Parts: sequence; C-alpha cells; structure tokens
Amino acid sequence: MSSVSAISPVRVAVVQFDPQCGLEHRSFNLSHSLHLAQRAVAGGAQLIVLPELANTGYAYRNREEAFALAEAVPDGPSAQAWIEFAREHKVYLAAGLAERDGHKLYDCAMLVGPDGFIGKYRKAHLWNLEKLWFSPGDLGFPVFETPIGRIGLMICWDVWFPEVPRLLSLQGADIICSLNNWVWTPPPLFDETGKCMASYLTITAAHVNNTFIAAANRIGTDRGDRFLGCSLIAGTNGWPLSEVAGAEEETILYADVDLVSARSAPIWNSLNDLPRDRRVDLYGSMLGYDRHAALPR
Amino acid sequence: MSSVSAISPVRVAVVQFDPQCGLEHRSFNLSHSLHLAQRAVAGGAQLIVLPELANTGYAYRNREEAFALAEAVPDGPSAQAWIEFAREHKVYLAAGLAERDGHKLYDCAMLVGPDGFIGKYRKAHLWNLEKLWFSPGDLGFPVFETPIGRIGLMICWDVWFPEVPRLLSLQGADIICSLNNWVWTPPPLFDETGKCMASYLTITAAHVNNTFIAAANRIGTDRGDRFLGCSLIAGTNGWPLSEVAGAEEETILYADVDLVSARSAPIWNSLNDLPRDRRVDLYGSMLGYDRHAALPR
Repeated sequence: MSSVSAISPVRVAVVQFDPQCGLEHRSFNLSHSLHLAQRAVAGGAQLIVLPELANTGYAYRNREEAFALAEAVPDGPSAQAWIEFAREHKVYLAAGLAERDGHKLYDCAMLVGPDGFIGKYRKAHLWNLEKLWFSPGDLGFPVFETPIGRIGLMICWDVWFPEVPRLLSLQGADIICSLNNWVWTPPPLFDETGKCMASYLTITAAHVNNTFIAAANRIGTDRGDRFLGCSLIAGTNGWPLSEVAGAEEETILYADVDLVSARSAPIWNSLNDLPRDRRVDLYGSMLGYDRHAALPR
Repeated sequence: MSSVSAISPVRVAVVQFDPQCGLEHRSFNLSHSLHLAQRAVAGGAQLIVLPELANTGYAYRNREEAFALAEAVPDGPSAQAWIEFAREHKVYLAAGLAERDGHKLYDCAMLVGPDGFIGKYRKAHLWNLEKLWFSPGDLGFPVFETPIGRIGLMICWDVWFPEVPRLLSLQGADIICSLNNWVWTPPPLFDETGKCMASYLTITAAHVNNTFIAAANRIGTDRGDRFLGCSLIAGTNGWPLSEVAGAEEETILYADVDLVSARSAPIWNSLNDLPRDRRVDLYGSMLGYDRHAALPR
C-alpha cells in the first residue's frame, strides 16, 4: 500500500492528537506523532497530515519559549525525523512545526516524501498571540507537484480567507493539506447539529474549488487553550468523505481519494464549469484592494 | 414600523414563493409578489427581498420567450409596480426580474426605496441554460448607500464564487440581498441533517465577510425544474438569525438586524480583524488570473 507510482487513488490520513507546549514535552510530541504516523501507514495511508505545530504544542508563554522550541526547516531535528520517516515508509507527510530562520520565527507546514524534503509553506494569516511570536508568511501559497498529485498547504486561520484555497486551486492543487490548531472561540461555535464553523469553511472551500481538503486539527487543552478536533477529509463536492472527528478523541481518519477527479469539471451540467465561469474581467484587481481603499458607490 | 430615518435596527424580510414561467402567468406572478410584500410590510419589514426572476418564472422554453417576458429596468411594468409599492409603503425592496436592454437580456436584481429606483445589478455568473438567453452581467458588483445602510446585491450562482461577497464586503456592504432560484442539483445536495450546500455557502460568506446576507429563494416546480427553498437570513457571524425555510412552503422569514454591527470588527480577540488580516501583498493580482495562466510550481 505504500506504492507511489500511481497517481490515484491515494489513501489519505488525517491525524488528530494532543501535543503539549514546553521543552519537557517536545520529545514526546515528536515520538508520538511518529507513532501515530506509523499507525496510519499500517492503515494503508500514502499521504498523512499532522496538525499545525505538531511538535511544539501551541500555547507558548512568550517569544523566547517559541524561539527555543523552533527549529530550522528542513535541517532541524523534528523535520529530519519526519523526513526519515517518509523515506523509510515511502509515504508523503505534511507536518506543522515552528520554524526558526535567523531571528525570525514562522508557523510552518512542511511537505516531505519518499525522496525527502519537498517544500514548505509559512502561515500567511496569523491568529491572535501568534502575531507576537511569528512573522507573517512570505512564501506565497505554493502548490507542489508530486508523483501522487499536486499538493497545496494551508494553516488554520487561512481557511477564513477564501482567497487561500482559491489561489491554491488556481494553481491546480488536487488536494489541500489543511494543518490546524482550531481553537474554541466565542459562541456560537457550532450549529444546532454540532457542526463547527471550521467544518463549514472546509466543506465550502472544497466545494467551490473542486479540490480535496484533508484537514487535521489537534484536540485537548494546552495551558488553558481548548481545541476543537473536528478533523475531516472533504471531497471535491465539499461533503466529508468519512466522519467528522469529535473534539476529544485521538484518532486517524482515512479516505481513498481519486485525485484525477479534482482535475475534471464538477458534473453540474454541460454549460457550467466553476473555474471557467469566474468573471476575472469583473473582479479586476479589486480583490487585492484594502477594504478602505474601495469606497462604496 | 415603516420609518426609514434610523440606520438600525432594520427589520428584514425574505419572501419565498412559486412564480411560474409563461406569459399567461406574468400578471399573477407580479400581483402575488406584491401581495406577499404587503404581508411583509404588515409584519413590520423595512427591507424586503424577493427571489430571482420573481415576475417571469425561471424555465424559459427559448430565448424568444425570455425576450417577450423581459422588460426595461426601471421603466418596465413590473419594475414600475415594485417602485410604486416601495414609495407607497416607504420600504426598501430588492426584486429579481428579466431585463431587456436593446437586443440584450440580463438576469437582473433591482433595488428600490421610498424615493424610487436606487440601482440594479446584472448577474455576473450565469447558470446552465441562462447562458443561452442572458448576457453576462456588465455592471460589476455595486453597493448602494441608502439611509438604512449599505446594500449589495447578488444572484444565485454568484455565491458559488467567494469573490462576489468578498467584493461587496470590501466596498462596505452592511447587508447583501441574495436573490435566488437555487435549483435541485445532482446529489448529495444536502448534508446528513438536511442542510443544503446553498445554506453552507451563504453562512460561510456572511461569516468570513462579517456581513448580513438576506437570501430569498423560490420554491416549487417550474416546467420540470425543481427548486430548493432554503431561504435564510444570516447574521454577521454566519449563523441564521431565524429558521432556514423548507423546500415546499410559501413563507416570509424576518430578522431584526443591527446594521452597525457589520461595520465593527468581529469580536475574535484584540489582535485579529478579518479585513485587516487579509494578505493583499500575497494575493497580488493572482485572484484575477485564469486558472490556466497560473502554472503549478
């Protein structure tokens, strides 16, 4: 099941677990992420998605602590361990980690595969206290061409900005790995059936972009911050391909996805095709405007 | 309750009913829309939203029939009747109608108020057979400043393009009137709880833009096309302010909306503000790109 010679189908796994912040937890966070990734491999996974900041936990006390936990990407110890894992098991792995580059820190997502490091993305939209430790991402929204398909990366608060999945889709992403630390925010956080807004955003982003989204979130509480779980794998029509995970349990979700289907037009009718139907003539450059530069008519 | 001197709160009503296509139904479609709008006024509404193509029905047999049913906006008979209604009752009304301008037809939404015609929008993203009768909208995505607030208009398939509510929000829309003929499409159309994708799209568009959305859809069957209902009024946090309407019943939904709240930042935390957090430096002009102009890296 670890063959990567075929484009599709690909067995995708999203892993939700409970990393804890602090130097004393770093070693366990990493080894436990590898243990869970190993379980995913045993389950047949060829592409495994770990949450945001999977090795360090989330709730840094201050920038100094974030700095001490961060590492070079791909040369740091967690990055190298994940690279080695992907090489050994001949799988693709997207993992979130705190990156240190000189004096700057980034909330980073790294994609690795059977041949080693593929690329990284630095979170563009920073949430809350992240703004106190991390620099805003400066690598754009890259899509990586791999033998199993084109893979885009996004992190947590990014999905609140429909620009992000749209830009990844416009570059041909077959699947977006969404690495998250979705946190409990002011109510109402859930609809009347218990579905959270993050699920809504993931489902609609997949739907309007005809793209798979494999969204891994963390669970648990980290120094008082409570996380949502709700990991899911959305199909190109948006709807989850397997259950949506709960807020509490450490778990792995799987889906076998036919990446080729993200390259076909959605089967609406013979006249509509979402990418073709975009009115780029009308959007102009206005989507790149600041709100306050665009006055109401 | 028909005072329009105060900015907010405003009682918004969305009307769902069952217009039928054909010259023989045109008169009843219009008179029934006025009857329902009258009921909404009696219910205290100050802003009333009717569905797309409320006077003509949807399922034209051919372009000739669409041409015969279409009218000048605002000089045609339906437009004039709605303008008169708004004047008489001192309310705002958004109504969908087929517009004829020379030899061209447009799927049009018109906004009228106590002082008459305010403006119109021509549907930018055409759905299915609409492409055979209508020209693509050429008026951009206007937002109209009124004494009750800034009002944007969008029509049906537009909400599948997150660019549209984003562009309206960037221009300061407090509320988006969404006029729809959401149609039954290939399954799965609903989630496991019976919520349709159009509701998901409306909810997330309101949420990520901190904008109210008053979405009126039609119901019923029109020459074999079956429609969804599912009208709803979404709050600035996305969640519906009253129930989501069913697929079958003629009904009016109301919500009292504090338009000022769409001008405040969402209460996330002291560091985040959705419009400010947009990374226009990274989006660049790429959102205006055609998919095929942007190669994967």
